[in-house]
Amino acid sequence: MDKQHIGISIIGAGRVGWHLAQALSASGYPVHEVWSRRHSQAQALAERLPKAVVSNSLDLRQSKSRLFLLTVTDAALLEVARRLLLPKNALLVHTSGSQPIDILQPRAQHCGVFYPLQTFSKEKQVDFSGIPFCLEASDAPSLQLLERVAGSLSSRIVHMNSAQRQQVHLAAVFACNFSNHMLRIAHELLKESELSEHLLDPLIQETLEKALSLGPAQAQTGPALRGDVPVMELHLKQLFQHPRWSELYQLLSEDISRSAGIKKGE
Amino acid sequence: MDKQHIGISIIGAGRVGWHLAQALSASGYPVHEVWSRRHSQAQALAERLPKAVVSNSLDLRQSKSRLFLLTVTDAALLEVARRLLLPKNALLVHTSGSQPIDILQPRAQHCGVFYPLQTFSKEKQVDFSGIPFCLEASDAPSLQLLERVAGSLSSRIVHMNSAQRQQVHLAAVFACNFSNHMLRIAHELLKESELSEHLLDPLIQETLEKALSLGPAQAQTGPALRGDVPVMELHLKQLFQHPRWSELYQLLSEDISRSAGIKKGE
Repeated sequence: MDKQHIGISIIGAGRVGWHLAQALSASGYPVHEVWSRRHSQAQALAERLPKAVVSNSLDLRQSKSRLFLLTVTDAALLEVARRLLLPKNALLVHTSGSQPIDILQPRAQHCGVFYPLQTFSKEKQVDFSGIPFCLEASDAPSLQLLERVAGSLSSRIVHMNSAQRQQVHLAAVFACNFSNHMLRIAHELLKESELSEHLLDPLIQETLEKALSLGPAQAQTGPALRGDVPVMELHLKQLFQHPRWSELYQLLSEDISRSAGIKKGE
Repeated sequence: MDKQHIGISIIGAGRVGWHLAQALSASGYPVHEVWSRRHSQAQALAERLPKAVVSNSLDLRQSKSRLFLLTVTDAALLEVARRLLLPKNALLVHTSGSQPIDILQPRAQHCGVFYPLQTFSKEKQVDFSGIPFCLEASDAPSLQLLERVAGSLSSRIVHMNSAQRQQVHLAAVFACNFSNHMLRIAHELLKESELSEHLLDPLIQETLEKALSLGPAQAQTGPALRGDVPVMELHLKQLFQHPRWSELYQLLSEDISRSAGIKKGE
């Protein structure tokens, strides 16, 4: 089947839907409908898609689409899925890292998961070509269709079950949200001392390069790894006005030295 | 004064001394002596420096050097400094982020701090050109000399006092050691589910790019920011075998949502 015969509907115009719809449309798939709880969002997205109209209803039984991408947040997923009415033979997939495939089974004969492992912001363009797509489907033909669609955006296709995907999602929270928060705390500390946040940019860049090339276990340095108690005590004193960061500092330092012990014991 | 007349002695052949000595030598400064508690380390470093000899003693009163770089760990700094004997007019500096300049004052008339804000591993080459050098000195001529030496390695020279440098060092622990540890935990979680660690590489790369371009406050995403309680509860269930990571997860999530509140309130 040609790309132009695999119509797609986008349900949810948040960050994931926003970028995915535009990339799929640019790669040759017609996006027929866009739905969002916020009509203005759906409108803004539809304006960027040559063939799309805004759907005011979740009754999509008349849609020409084959693939229905549910990109709403996890919190809204169940409720939106319950209200959806789809054509026969529709393939309904969600894009969530944490939700199992099961929740779609009552809604459509063919269902699946199409989870792009990336962090999306509206402000920043997304290059999908290197992003892993974690796929799961209720049946082989559905999986093949998802492989084909994902394959037109990216060269990294990974099959995994719902439990594995949940673990990937948890790992991503540590690798992305939590590591980003460490950078946030660092910036706040510099601001307190009237120092430029950009002072740390080369260190942050090098930290990443080392983590990716040597692996984070091998790349680790610092007072916790060295067991340098006086420096850690000094840092805790400096954090006296930040009890939560102080607690984080202690927990993280303990865990780093525990991990180092495991490494040495290998 | 020509570079070749500003001789340098390196006291400590650990990661910082290792890279700094070679970079200074390559940039034209003669490194006359190398001292290390581990003789083999000093030997290995001296072999890479055309003019250096290994010094077996901390009595360097006969040295032709002007600048004495103390690159030993914070834990050894005081003791090594106490044993040092230097020529008159020597400029003694340490390379530590956390130690005040004061600790050198009893040891030399001219003293200073020469702190390269970077993470060093022996396995990885260092490009000093973008690394900020945080400088402090007991007197103006000493500061000028340090500016000149640092300026021959890098274009980023920053003057700061000891309290500011300690704050930079603390911020660096969050930005480097702690963010790296988040990547380490993420890798461990993937390994537990028999998934490739490299699955997260594009996410990690993008997280960094967004943090550097938008700033980490603006770049944040994820369940804690959204206040997505069911997903966070699911993650805590997944972490049931890792009580420490579970505690970290809760603390970090609380702090992310607290920070988001501050941002909204701005």
